Amino acid sequence: MQVGFIGLGNMGQGMAARLIAAGHELTLYNRTATKAEALARATGDKARVAVSPRECAAGAEAIVTMLADDAAVEAALFGAEGAFPAMAAGAVHASMSTISVALSERLQDTHARAGHRYVAAPVFGRPDAAAAGQLAIVAAGAEAALERCRPLFEAMGRATFSFGTEAAKANVVKLSGNFLIASVIESLGEALALVRKAGVDPSAYLALLTSTLFGAPVYQGYGGRIAQGKFQAEAGFAMPLALKDMRLAMEAATARQVPMPTLAVIWQRLLAAEARGYGDLDWSALGLLAAEDAGLPGGATK
Amino acid sequence: MQVGFIGLGNMGQGMAARLIAAGHELTLYNRTATKAEALARATGDKARVAVSPRECAAGAEAIVTMLADDAAVEAALFGAEGAFPAMAAGAVHASMSTISVALSERLQDTHARAGHRYVAAPVFGRPDAAAAGQLAIVAAGAEAALERCRPLFEAMGRATFSFGTEAAKANVVKLSGNFLIASVIESLGEALALVRKAGVDPSAYLALLTSTLFGAPVYQGYGGRIAQGKFQAEAGFAMPLALKDMRLAMEAATARQVPMPTLAVIWQRLLAAEARGYGDLDWSALGLLAAEDAGLPGGATK
Amino acid sequence: MQVGFIGLGNMGQGMAARLIAAGHELTLYNRTATKAEALARATGDKARVAVSPRECAAGAEAIVTMLADDAAVEAALFGAEGAFPAMAAGAVHASMSTISVALSERLQDTHARAGHRYVAAPVFGRPDAAAAGQLAIVAAGAEAALERCRPLFEAMGRATFSFGTEAAKANVVKLSGNFLIASVIESLGEALALVRKAGVDPSAYLALLTSTLFGAPVYQGYGGRIAQGKFQAEAGFAMPLALKDMRLAMEAATARQVPMPTLAVIWQRLLAAEARGYGDLDWSALGLLAAEDAGLPGGATK
Amino acid sequence: MQVGFIGLGNMGQGMAARLIAAGHELTLYNRTATKAEALARATGDKARVAVSPRECAAGAEAIVTMLADDAAVEAALFGAEGAFPAMAAGAVHASMSTISVALSERLQDTHARAGHRYVAAPVFGRPDAAAAGQLAIVAAGAEAALERCRPLFEAMGRATFSFGTEAAKANVVKLSGNFLIASVIESLGEALALVRKAGVDPSAYLALLTSTLFGAPVYQGYGGRIAQGKFQAEAGFAMPLALKDMRLAMEAATARQVPMPTLAVIWQRLLAAEARGYGDLDWSALGLLAAEDAGLPGGATK
Repeated sequence: MQVGFIGLGNMGQGMAARLIAAGHELTLYNRTATKAEALARATGDKARVAVSPRECAAGAEAIVTMLADDAAVEAALFGAEGAFPAMAAGAVHASMSTISVALSERLQDTHARAGHRYVAAPVFGRPDAAAAGQLAIVAAGAEAALERCRPLFEAMGRATFSFGTEAAKANVVKLSGNFLIASVIESLGEALALVRKAGVDPSAYLALLTSTLFGAPVYQGYGGRIAQGKFQAEAGFAMPLALKDMRLAMEAATARQVPMPTLAVIWQRLLAAEARGYGDLDWSALGLLAAEDAGLPGGATK
Repeated sequence: MQVGFIGLGNMGQGMAARLIAAGHELTLYNRTATKAEALARATGDKARVAVSPRECAAGAEAIVTMLADDAAVEAALFGAEGAFPAMAAGAVHASMSTISVALSERLQDTHARAGHRYVAAPVFGRPDAAAAGQLAIVAAGAEAALERCRPLFEAMGRATFSFGTEAAKANVVKLSGNFLIASVIESLGEALALVRKAGVDPSAYLALLTSTLFGAPVYQGYGGRIAQGKFQAEAGFAMPLALKDMRLAMEAATARQVPMPTLAVIWQRLLAAEARGYGDLDWSALGLLAAEDAGLPGGATK
Repeated sequence: MQVGFIGLGNMGQGMAARLIAAGHELTLYNRTATKAEALARATGDKARVAVSPRECAAGAEAIVTMLADDAAVEAALFGAEGAFPAMAAGAVHASMSTISVALSERLQDTHARAGHRYVAAPVFGRPDAAAAGQLAIVAAGAEAALERCRPLFEAMGRATFSFGTEAAKANVVKLSGNFLIASVIESLGEALALVRKAGVDPSAYLALLTSTLFGAPVYQGYGGRIAQGKFQAEAGFAMPLALKDMRLAMEAATARQVPMPTLAVIWQRLLAAEARGYGDLDWSALGLLAAEDAGLPGGATK
Repeated sequence: MQVGFIGLGNMGQGMAARLIAAGHELTLYNRTATKAEALARATGDKARVAVSPRECAAGAEAIVTMLADDAAVEAALFGAEGAFPAMAAGAVHASMSTISVALSERLQDTHARAGHRYVAAPVFGRPDAAAAGQLAIVAAGAEAALERCRPLFEAMGRATFSFGTEAAKANVVKLSGNFLIASVIESLGEALALVRKAGVDPSAYLALLTSTLFGAPVYQGYGGRIAQGKFQAEAGFAMPLALKDMRLAMEAATARQVPMPTLAVIWQRLLAAEARGYGDLDWSALGLLAAEDAGLPGGATK
C-alpha cells in the first residue's frame, strides 16, 4: 500500500521499518529530516523521504501519524505545508500516537467532511515492541476504514483490539490504560517505601508479588526499576510524556464527569516529580518520589 | 505433629483440614463450637475438639491462630482460659491471620520471654485456595521456629516466602500486598467508570487489558467482578475486613512515617462504601462506588 | 469616560450600573440584547445599546469585559463583529471576569502589539456587592493602564489590590483565591459531617468556630448554608462555574509545576457533584456531598 | 475550690496559674517535679506540690488533666500511684487536653461507675492565651458536672461553649476544629506556592486575602508564618502534636464512617513532613513542604 508516515521518533522508526519490511511503499516525513533519511538508507532506500507533510500525503492511500502531542498532529495536518489538503478522497488517516479525546473527535468529523477516512489507533508497547512488530493496537473507526488499515496493523502489531466506529473510544481506552500503568507505579512506589522502611528486602518482596497475584509484565518491569533504583528514561517513558497523558486522561474524565481520585493523586505526584527536578527520568521515578517522601534514600537499595 | 488450631472460619476450616489430611494430630478450637465439631466429624474424627484455647494449646507442639482481628487473637491467647499460659516451653505459635504489625511485634517479645517460639505467617489466597492447600504463605521469625513450621506450611500452601527473623516483617508484607490489591480494584473502578461513560464495552476493555500488560489474576478476577456488577461477598472479602486491613496498613505506615496517598484515597472510599450501605459487599464494590460517583448505574453493565 | 461594557450577567449589570451612576458614558453589549436594553432603560437611558461588540468598542476609551469564560471573551474580541479591531490606539481593555491565566497572557501580548492597553482585573464579590460598588478588585497591568482604569475601579469596588505590571498575576491571584474558598467549603463539609454524625448540633458548632479562630465571612456564609442545607444557587455560585474555576486553577498549577493535592480533591468532588445531579446547586453543595458520602441525609439538619 | 492539677506543660502552667490567681487551692503534679515547684514558687507558694497523681487527687473537689496524649492520661489516672482510686465520691475530673474520642467515652463510663463526675473540656488557644485566661473552652458532660466546673472555666477561658451531656462530643468538636486549622494551613501553603511561582508577592497576596473574605485570625497567623518562612515551633504547635491530633480525628471519622478526603491529604503531608526531617517545626511547615514540592526554596521569601 502507498503509505505516508509522519513522525519518526523512537516509536515511529520501528513502526515504519516494519511497514517497509512488509512490502508497503512508504514516504517518510519527520521534522528533523536526518531521521527520515537514516531510516530510508537503513531499509535499502526502499522508502522515499518527503520535505513536508503535504508531500508525504500526496498520492498516499493511507497516512500514519506518530507524533508527540496534539499540537504536533494539528501542525502536521493543518499547518503550512500540512498533509490534510493533500489527502486524496477516500484516503485513510491512522492516528497512532496518544492524543486527546477531543482532538480525535474533531479529526473524525473533519476528515469525514473532506471525504477522508479516519481511524484512531493508539498503541501499547515500548520502542523495542515497535521494532519487533509486537505492539498492541487499540483501534476504532468506521469499519471500512479499519479494514483498510488491517494490513498495516498486522505488520506493526501482534494484536488489534477494536472498539467500534466512534474513533475517540480508542483514545479513551489508551489513556485509561496509561492511567492504570501509572497507578501500578504509584502504588508499588508506596508499598516499596513501606516495606523498605520496615527492613524488608525489596527484591524478595517483588518475587513474592509477581509469583502470586501480581504476575503481570507491568509489575515485573516497573517493580524491578523501582527496587533497583533504575530511573533513567532511555528506552523508557519520560515524565513530561507521562504528565501529558495524565492531563489528557483528566480532561477526558472532566468532560464526561468521572471523578478519578487515584488519577488526581498521580497527577499531583508527577507535578512534584517535575518540580523537584526529575523531569528527565522515566515515570517509574514516581517510586523515587515515594521513597524520598518517606525519608528514604531514593536510589538503588543496595 | 501435635497442633492446636484456633479459629475455624472460612479460611481456617480449609487449612485445618489440610493439616489433618497430612497426618498431623489436631486439636480444634472455635468460639462457636459447632464449626469445630463439624470439621472433626467431616475428617473422620481424626481431630479432637477443645472447649477452650487453653485446652487446645495443652500438649501442642504448635498452635496456629486464624482469627478475625487483633482483639480475637489477644483474647484467645491472654483472655480467660487463654492458650498462652498452657503453651509448653519450646512450642511454636504460628499467627496466620492478618493482624497488626504492632501486635505481631508484641507477640514475638512476649512469647520469647516465656520460652515459646513465634512465627508470623499470614497468607494470600481465598477460601478455595485454603481448602486446596494452595495458599501463598508469607513467613518471618527465628529460623528454628520457621523450620519447625515447615511441615505445616507445606501442607497448607503451595509456596512459603520467608522474610527473615523479625516476625513483624511478614505482617508488613501482607498488609502492603492487600493495599496493592485494593489499589488495583480502585484504579480499575475508576478506569471502568471512564470507559463506560465513553460508551466502551467493559468486557472488551478487560480483554484488552488482561491480554497485554495486565495479565495477572488480580486484574482478571476483580476486573470481571466490576464489569459484571458481581459485588456479593460470598467467597469474597467483605468491606469491613478490607477496611480493617487498610487501617492496619495505615497504622504501619504512620508508625514508620511513610506517606501513602493512594492508600489514603482507598481508605476514604471504603469509609464511603460502608456509610452508603455497601458494608455487606465484597471490596470489589469500590468499583460500584466509582460508577455511582460518575453518575452511572452501579450494577451489571449487561 | 467613554466605556464599552460587554457582558451584562448577574455581575455585569451591577457593575455597569455603578459606572453609569458615576457619570461615565456607557455603551452596553450583551449577547441577549434584552438585558442591555433593560439596563439602559433602568438607568434613564443614560447608556447606549450596541448591536455588536464591535459597535460597543468603537470610540471607547475603555472596554470592560465581564463574560462567562475564555471562549466568550475570545468571541467578543476576535469573533465576527468582534471588539478588537474596533479599539482605538491607546484604548484600554479591562478584563474583569475570571478567565484563564493563559488567555490573559495572550491578551496582554496581542493588545500590546496592536497599540492597545490591557489590564486584568478580576473581582471578589457576589452580585449584591457588584450592585453596591463593593467589589474587591484584583488588578495587574502596565501602570499607565491601571491608572487609566482607576476611576472605573473606584466606581465599582471598595478597594483595588494591585499586583504589578504582568497582567496574568491578577488572574493567578483570583483563581487561587477561589481555590481557597472552595477549600473552606470542602473542609467545612467534612467537619460538619463528622460532628453531625457524632450528634453535635451544627449551628452551635458554627457559632463556636466563627466566634474564635474562624471569624471570617467565608466561614459564616458557607458554614450557614451547609448547616441549614441551603444549596440553591440563586445569588450563589453554581457548580459549573466552580468547576470551571478549579479547572483553570489546575491548569495554572500544572503550567507552573505546583502540586496542589487539596485542589485535586476539590476537583474530584465537584465532578462527583455534577455527575450525581447537583450541577444546578451552589458550590456549597460540596457539603451536601460530604454528608451523603457519610451516609447522612443531605438536606437541612432539622 | 480544692483542685488537683495534673500536667504543667506550656499550656498547663498558664492555666494553673490562672486558677491560683482566682483564689482556688491547687495541688500541682507534673512528671518532672521541677516544673511544679517552679510554678508553686512563682505564685508565692499558694499552691502545694504533690509527689504523685494519687496525692494530687486526694481531697480534691476537682482534678484537671492537661497532658500530652491518651497514654499520659491513662497513666496519671490508672497507673501506679494514679489519681483515680484517690478521687472522692462526687469529685469531678475535667479532661482539658486533646485526647481521643474513644478514651473520653471510656472515662465518662468509668468515672460514672465509681461515683465520680467527668467533663471533657478541651481548649482552643496557644500558651499565651492560656496564661492570659483567654482560652476558648469546649465543654460537654452532665449538667451538674459542668456547673461544678464553671468557676474554674471562668478563670481559665474567655468563653465556654457547651455541647451537651455526652462528654465525647466536646472531643469531636475539638478534633474537627484542629482539622479545620490544618486545612487552612495546607490550602494556604498550596495557594502561596502557586502565587509565588507566578511571581506574586506573598505579603501583598495575604493582605488581599485577610482584608476580604479571609479576615480571620487563622489566616493572618498561619499565612504570615508561611509567607515569612517562620516555621520554628516555639510558641507554636509542633508536628508530632499535629500528627497525633489528625490521627485522632481520623480514628473518630473511621469509627463513625465519615469520609474526609481533605483530612487524608493533610495526614499524608504531615507524615512526609516528619519523614523529611521537619518534625521539630511548627505545623505551619506544611507550607514549607508545599513550597519544596513545587520546587521553590522553602524558607523566607525575602
